[in-house]
Amino acid sequence: MIEGTVATVQVDELIVMALKEDIGPGDKTTAYLVEPGLQGRATVIAKEELVVAGMVPFRRVFQILSSRVEFLFAEQEGELIEKGALIAELQGPFDILLTGERTALNFLQHLSGVATRTAQFVERIKPYEVALLDTRKTAPGMRVLEKEAVHVGGGINHRVGLFDGILIKDNHIAACGGITQAVKKAQAARNPLLKIEVEVCTIQELIEALDAGPDMIMLDNMAIDDIRKAVEIAGGGIPLEVSGNVTLENIEEIAQTGINYISVGSLTHSAPAVDISMEINCE
Amino acid sequence: MIEGTVATVQVDELIVMALKEDIGPGDKTTAYLVEPGLQGRATVIAKEELVVAGMVPFRRVFQILSSRVEFLFAEQEGELIEKGALIAELQGPFDILLTGERTALNFLQHLSGVATRTAQFVERIKPYEVALLDTRKTAPGMRVLEKEAVHVGGGINHRVGLFDGILIKDNHIAACGGITQAVKKAQAARNPLLKIEVEVCTIQELIEALDAGPDMIMLDNMAIDDIRKAVEIAGGGIPLEVSGNVTLENIEEIAQTGINYISVGSLTHSAPAVDISMEINCE
Amino acid sequence: MIEGTVATVQVDELIVMALKEDIGPGDKTTAYLVEPGLQGRATVIAKEELVVAGMVPFRRVFQILSSRVEFLFAEQEGELIEKGALIAELQGPFDILLTGERTALNFLQHLSGVATRTAQFVERIKPYEVALLDTRKTAPGMRVLEKEAVHVGGGINHRVGLFDGILIKDNHIAACGGITQAVKKAQAARNPLLKIEVEVCTIQELIEALDAGPDMIMLDNMAIDDIRKAVEIAGGGIPLEVSGNVTLENIEEIAQTGINYISVGSLTHSAPAVDISMEINCE
Amino acid sequence: MIEGTVATVQVDELIVMALKEDIGPGDKTTAYLVEPGLQGRATVIAKEELVVAGMVPFRRVFQILSSRVEFLFAEQEGELIEKGALIAELQGPFDILLTGERTALNFLQHLSGVATRTAQFVERIKPYEVALLDTRKTAPGMRVLEKEAVHVGGGINHRVGLFDGILIKDNHIAACGGITQAVKKAQAARNPLLKIEVEVCTIQELIEALDAGPDMIMLDNMAIDDIRKAVEIAGGGIPLEVSGNVTLENIEEIAQTGINYISVGSLTHSAPAVDISMEINCE
Amino acid sequence: MIEGTVATVQVDELIVMALKEDIGPGDKTTAYLVEPGLQGRATVIAKEELVVAGMVPFRRVFQILSSRVEFLFAEQEGELIEKGALIAELQGPFDILLTGERTALNFLQHLSGVATRTAQFVERIKPYEVALLDTRKTAPGMRVLEKEAVHVGGGINHRVGLFDGILIKDNHIAACGGITQAVKKAQAARNPLLKIEVEVCTIQELIEALDAGPDMIMLDNMAIDDIRKAVEIAGGGIPLEVSGNVTLENIEEIAQTGINYISVGSLTHSAPAVDISMEINCE
Amino acid sequence: MIEGTVATVQVDELIVMALKEDIGPGDKTTAYLVEPGLQGRATVIAKEELVVAGMVPFRRVFQILSSRVEFLFAEQEGELIEKGALIAELQGPFDILLTGERTALNFLQHLSGVATRTAQFVERIKPYEVALLDTRKTAPGMRVLEKEAVHVGGGINHRVGLFDGILIKDNHIAACGGITQAVKKAQAARNPLLKIEVEVCTIQELIEALDAGPDMIMLDNMAIDDIRKAVEIAGGGIPLEVSGNVTLENIEEIAQTGINYISVGSLTHSAPAVDISMEINCE
Repeated sequence: MIEGTVATVQVDELIVMALKEDIGPGDKTTAYLVEPGLQGRATVIAKEELVVAGMVPFRRVFQILSSRVEFLFAEQEGELIEKGALIAELQGPFDILLTGERTALNFLQHLSGVATRTAQFVERIKPYEVALLDTRKTAPGMRVLEKEAVHVGGGINHRVGLFDGILIKDNHIAACGGITQAVKKAQAARNPLLKIEVEVCTIQELIEALDAGPDMIMLDNMAIDDIRKAVEIAGGGIPLEVSGNVTLENIEEIAQTGINYISVGSLTHSAPAVDISMEINCE
Repeated sequence: MIEGTVATVQVDELIVMALKEDIGPGDKTTAYLVEPGLQGRATVIAKEELVVAGMVPFRRVFQILSSRVEFLFAEQEGELIEKGALIAELQGPFDILLTGERTALNFLQHLSGVATRTAQFVERIKPYEVALLDTRKTAPGMRVLEKEAVHVGGGINHRVGLFDGILIKDNHIAACGGITQAVKKAQAARNPLLKIEVEVCTIQELIEALDAGPDMIMLDNMAIDDIRKAVEIAGGGIPLEVSGNVTLENIEEIAQTGINYISVGSLTHSAPAVDISMEINCE
Repeated sequence: MIEGTVATVQVDELIVMALKEDIGPGDKTTAYLVEPGLQGRATVIAKEELVVAGMVPFRRVFQILSSRVEFLFAEQEGELIEKGALIAELQGPFDILLTGERTALNFLQHLSGVATRTAQFVERIKPYEVALLDTRKTAPGMRVLEKEAVHVGGGINHRVGLFDGILIKDNHIAACGGITQAVKKAQAARNPLLKIEVEVCTIQELIEALDAGPDMIMLDNMAIDDIRKAVEIAGGGIPLEVSGNVTLENIEEIAQTGINYISVGSLTHSAPAVDISMEINCE
Repeated sequence: MIEGTVATVQVDELIVMALKEDIGPGDKTTAYLVEPGLQGRATVIAKEELVVAGMVPFRRVFQILSSRVEFLFAEQEGELIEKGALIAELQGPFDILLTGERTALNFLQHLSGVATRTAQFVERIKPYEVALLDTRKTAPGMRVLEKEAVHVGGGINHRVGLFDGILIKDNHIAACGGITQAVKKAQAARNPLLKIEVEVCTIQELIEALDAGPDMIMLDNMAIDDIRKAVEIAGGGIPLEVSGNVTLENIEEIAQTGINYISVGSLTHSAPAVDISMEINCE
Repeated sequence: MIEGTVATVQVDELIVMALKEDIGPGDKTTAYLVEPGLQGRATVIAKEELVVAGMVPFRRVFQILSSRVEFLFAEQEGELIEKGALIAELQGPFDILLTGERTALNFLQHLSGVATRTAQFVERIKPYEVALLDTRKTAPGMRVLEKEAVHVGGGINHRVGLFDGILIKDNHIAACGGITQAVKKAQAARNPLLKIEVEVCTIQELIEALDAGPDMIMLDNMAIDDIRKAVEIAGGGIPLEVSGNVTLENIEEIAQTGINYISVGSLTHSAPAVDISMEINCE
Repeated sequence: MIEGTVATVQVDELIVMALKEDIGPGDKTTAYLVEPGLQGRATVIAKEELVVAGMVPFRRVFQILSSRVEFLFAEQEGELIEKGALIAELQGPFDILLTGERTALNFLQHLSGVATRTAQFVERIKPYEVALLDTRKTAPGMRVLEKEAVHVGGGINHRVGLFDGILIKDNHIAACGGITQAVKKAQAARNPLLKIEVEVCTIQELIEALDAGPDMIMLDNMAIDDIRKAVEIAGGGIPLEVSGNVTLENIEEIAQTGINYISVGSLTHSAPAVDISMEINCE
């Protein structure tokens, strides 16, 4: 999704921003202590079991700093690797490796954290016909990267932003005077390629929504019993999504209801960074 | 730290980037369903106990979208508030409130998460003369904002980047041929206002470092007994910092050793987002 | 669509680019001839019948140049007005009005040209249940503005870009080994809110496509008889779009076939600028 | 004019803007359907007789997307080619070719349209000593590219913007109190290298202007008889430019008057896109 | 020239760059020592006789930092003021005044230095009909501001860049095979509003140049006797410019030759900053 | 300091700004007179004795303009070279060399001017244990480059901006109610790696400052006798810096006092450009 598209341009903007905030007018320690011209070699090691994501920005950090950094090895995105496994090996100017280390790891540790957490959720629902979705609850500037991390972790990307899907929420419904009116109004816009999803909180609302004829329905914060009832009522005629308070503990039970999609905000907004180290040696 | 300095300019760049990635060519749902001209009012509520941070970017999101959004109430940064408490109340064009909601909350929930986590660590070490430090393990583009969140949560900011402090790490030491040589080389640069901190892993290295005469020493991943020994050896003549694997569980024990600073990466890289809701009503 | 969303930020980038290319280091003529401090008043007049579009960038040009330009009157976007009618009246510093005139008119004349041309096409198909669509054949940097001009001219916006809709074209089909395989592959991605449209060139292909089950089918460059046959075969079960070589002369005949959508590239890529003048007087 | 100067930097800014608006967070169709790693070959064919322009941005689109796109053939700018002729042949990653196609063609079709239209006007006035000029009525952001297209089509570029020539228009004259005063004021500025052109609407004004001694005079919207009279009165002592309502039908008659320059706004603001196709095959 | 044109936008870009490089992640001293909310008042005083220039960027620095800074007094650009005179008085948040001081003064001291130096040169040639020109030897990013400082100091701006005038130098002449060929080639381009200046080093070259018929001739590094001879030979038929090694000591002698323009690079590239202080008091 | 760090990115922004202001929409003279495809060779020669600085931006100017410019020779930064010595030799497209010449030289002449002036000051104080410091009085946008020029000229960089050092000035002291209070307040912030310097104007203030315990003291505009007294009182216990009105004439006398640092604003704000020429020949 990232390489070979203009997303690279956008990701570069964020990387340059990150490098500027870390390096500013210069890495003083390295400038004072490291002779220019030294070559170095670095190994990036997983300090815990994890799913790799973020190799693209990790590489770009060093490529933006210097054209002389070479990657000898780089793990595939989405690979589940063991504690102690090699993630990447690179060589280049010793000072560049030192200066770029923290910024590069900040991307890699966070994005691998997202992918790892995603894979844990996916693992729980593997036996079922349900797909795991992400949300728009992402770190500012990281939307595309975090969505890609969810993807390589085994999840499916929900809409990227407010522009690539119509999702009618409670506030929209209130402004339109009801679910039926809201759905009709959205249909009247005749957007050729965007589907219409509507959010409901009760079985009552679900029934009204089914009648209005959207393309998908989100069950917002419903109890497990209501979810079961909803699946039964919908009868497979329309995709249903469960959203709200989904955890590693309860996701399998939700999956068992026969729901089509489950979305989880914490995949992105609360994934802890995974532990990765980078050893840099002078050659 | 943020308002009234050029940092606002830099924060705005990140906010615009965040808004672009969320809104792109337009919020379709709102465009199709909400009549222009409607006025709205929104209340932002804590759904759990938390320390507030991120009000500056939260406000800026709406101010960048429209000059007609007015804040009726905004909680102080750094305030510890209860579940259910009001964080902010604002009014303005209904469509703007809907369109900006997610981006604004993404800042507020993450930064309050950082401040809340910081406050939890600070709480544990209150009885001691030790200061809690952050690290450079921050989300790309968010360095200044996350450091400010640590500050309002009661922590002290370590250096912002590679430019405002000299921190000699193992890789630098290896390249210079030893702790003594590294510290001497840094001193020879005669930087007038930057202190020199050196990282040590063993008591042996600590002794060598004390001899070399830096301004501060970081004890990297040392066992609690070694930390105690280090404090004793240093004898208060130089500030010592503990770094590595510090948790809410072990921080008090570390604080009791008489150490001067404790730095914690997870304040920023693994703080879960706190739960905050925004109710938007049409007026 | 534009005011009150972040699109304003993006449009401003293009306007600043346009102002820079026109004004560069300064409007020499105005600098040499016009005393600073003079006030002026300008009237913008339609020199032919037209549909107004582009008032947002027209205004922004002057607002970016100065905070002292005031609009006394501004015609509604989408209004069909007669030759000689007033489009806008504004007052402000005389030199600003002179300096901004050409850039502001370049937006207004082109975008009103797009809206006017769109309205001419819409007029021809009014009696039918068909919607007029635009394409991605737009002037670089003007996508959102031209799409908005089509909208106010009475058209419907097809997908904005490559990201808000799945449109399977001949090249994709060839790479996948056939229509069926391509549609299946797209469905397997399980994107929750994006519909799948597939392009076909013959009745044979249409039949295969109908079988594969996309959400919409585009009939590419089909003869009118084939279009009629296609509508009959599809039987209303799926929306059909006609694309390719649609003109003001043949659009009504196409509309009569019962097709659902007709897309026209020349709405944007070949709409001649309409004639608009701006009279500026010193007060 | 473009390659080898900083204009490339500015053109790149517009291209990146164009790519962002088209690709946004990703080309979904290609991502779902095309295996990464496939190689492709594309041929760009003229579907009508045309003059080629815009090869620089056409190439840059693909170069910005990927370093692996190679041009096997690229027609010379300014070449008049027949329907069916090859304009370019390129090869590279299949997905890149698909993703960049529309943006690249949008530049090429519009700019070749401008060059083609220019060449048609130039053809009509070839037997005469007159030069065809463009105007500042260009698409926002495209000034330099459109001026280059006029140039390769056989036209001469009038001033690029407000900064590289002094053109005194009716509004300036009114503010100065008359043609004589305006010209004198401009001369008093003693700009070393910018000429002074003044716009006149009547023979009366022409006579006053000749007396004031500018470097060039523009006859604005004058009838053909007045143009003839003007040429006679000026007697070759100063270059004259005809401006306003010039068409393919009347330009030869105007050229026959002995005028020195004829400027035509529709070269840029109303040139229809020419028909160009791009066939992309998987290798 | 600056206010009320898009140049403000470009100047703002430089000011933001300057503020970022000075303030970076924050003014630590002010953050630690100054209570937010304090109001301050500042007076800007000339510590030597000088000509004021740069008030526009001086003001913008504070306006970009805060909307709450108010100017109570601001000296006119171009005014010659005595040592001890008030240049500006402003009030606003105390911390903003402290934080912006250095950046604002850096603009004011340098640009007033340029204006002051310009005025000194102009003073020497006042009795003569000659104009003082600047060059393109300016500080990177400061072209427009330095040219404006020359203007307010009494000089005339030569071309701003490579785009608003044709200046044929020795290298161009060599590439064309001689002065005559070079001038003819430039004339053949028929640029409507740009004059052609050609550089000559000897009387021989001058004679050839006069024959070729450019619009202006630059005498490059000629001895005073040759300049006199050149003026005589040209006989007033074409403007002549002296360039190279002009100093305060020799400019009057050059002026006496009857030359039309004298250009001086050191107006901009070697003007020492003037001494200006800013006193800031807490209110 | 510059190559191999993100500073390159920031320097490129300034270079692009400089190129845009000089080249704008194109180098007309070169476009009209120089055939594309010609190759050229350029030699850069010192026209006076100087210390070389600014080779990095000098190179980047040409690299940004074209990938085909090659450096055959480039003098080391910091080298003191004689009048007539070769600074650089490069070859590439003839038109690129012509177009980039002025912008490249503007960097090189100014920065070598800074380095040369720095070296002159350093020469005077060589026999003493004192270091020469720069200030924040730099050209907007050039901070990092000018600081590097000071460095290669033999000086030491004082803090880069407001963020990498705490410098308490008279205004801060006044706001805090005295030197003691100000220093205590700064110490209470517990910044781990930033030293605290305090500015004093009298011996009285020095004594108070010594008592408060900062890390460094600046003697602001003190008479030579007071400086001597200050050195004696401080007794070597804390580094002292002399600032204000330091010239080539008086710096040795100041150095003899035993002071540790002397800062000189004119190193950057008033260094005259050195004379460097660039000969470009067609091959």
